Amino acid sequence: MDYALVIGYLASACSVTSFIPQVMKVVRSGDTAAISARMYTVTVIGFALWSIFGILRQEWPIILTNSTCFFLAGYILYRKLRSHLR
Amino acid sequence: MDYALVIGYLASACSVTSFIPQVMKVVRSGDTAAISARMYTVTVIGFALWSIFGILRQEWPIILTNSTCFFLAGYILYRKLRSHLR
Repeated sequence: MDYALVIGYLASACSVTSFIPQVMKVVRSGDTAAISARMYTVTVIGFALWSIFGILRQEWPIILTNSTCFFLAGYILYRKLRSHLR
Repeated sequence: MDYALVIGYLASACSVTSFIPQVMKVVRSGDTAAISARMYTVTVIGFALWSIFGILRQEWPIILTNSTCFFLAGYILYRKLRSHLR
C-alpha cells in the first residue's frame, strides 16, 4: 500500500475543506475585520498559479484541489474587499 | 525553459508568504474574532500531512513549503484559541 499517496489525498482533503468553515463564518457573521486582505490576495494568486501548474503538468488532483480552493478563498477575499468599499 | 517549474516555485512562494500578513495583522491588532478556528485547525493538520507526504516522497520543496506554513498557520491558530480561553 502506498502510504504517501493516502496521506497526500488526506492532505488535499484538508486543504480544500479548510476554507469551508471560514466561508460559512463570513456568510453568517458578515465580520471580516480580523481577516487580512493581503493574505487572501496572495493566497488567491497562489491557487491560480497552482492550478496553471497542474494544467501544464496535466495533474488532475492538483487542478481540482487548487481551483476549488481558488473559488473558496476568492469568495472570502470578495467579501473582505466589499466590506472595505462600504 | 520549464515554465511549469517556474510557476510551481512562484505558487510555493505565494503559499508560504500569504500567511505573513495575517500573522502580522493578528500580532498588531490582537483581533482574531472573524478568523475561523475550525479553518485553521484543518489547515494546520493539512500542512502537517503535506509535510509527512514530502518526507515520505523525499521532496524538499514540499517539506520546506508545508512545514513553514505549518508554523505560520499554527501561530494564528494558537492566538485564536488563546483568545477563546480569556
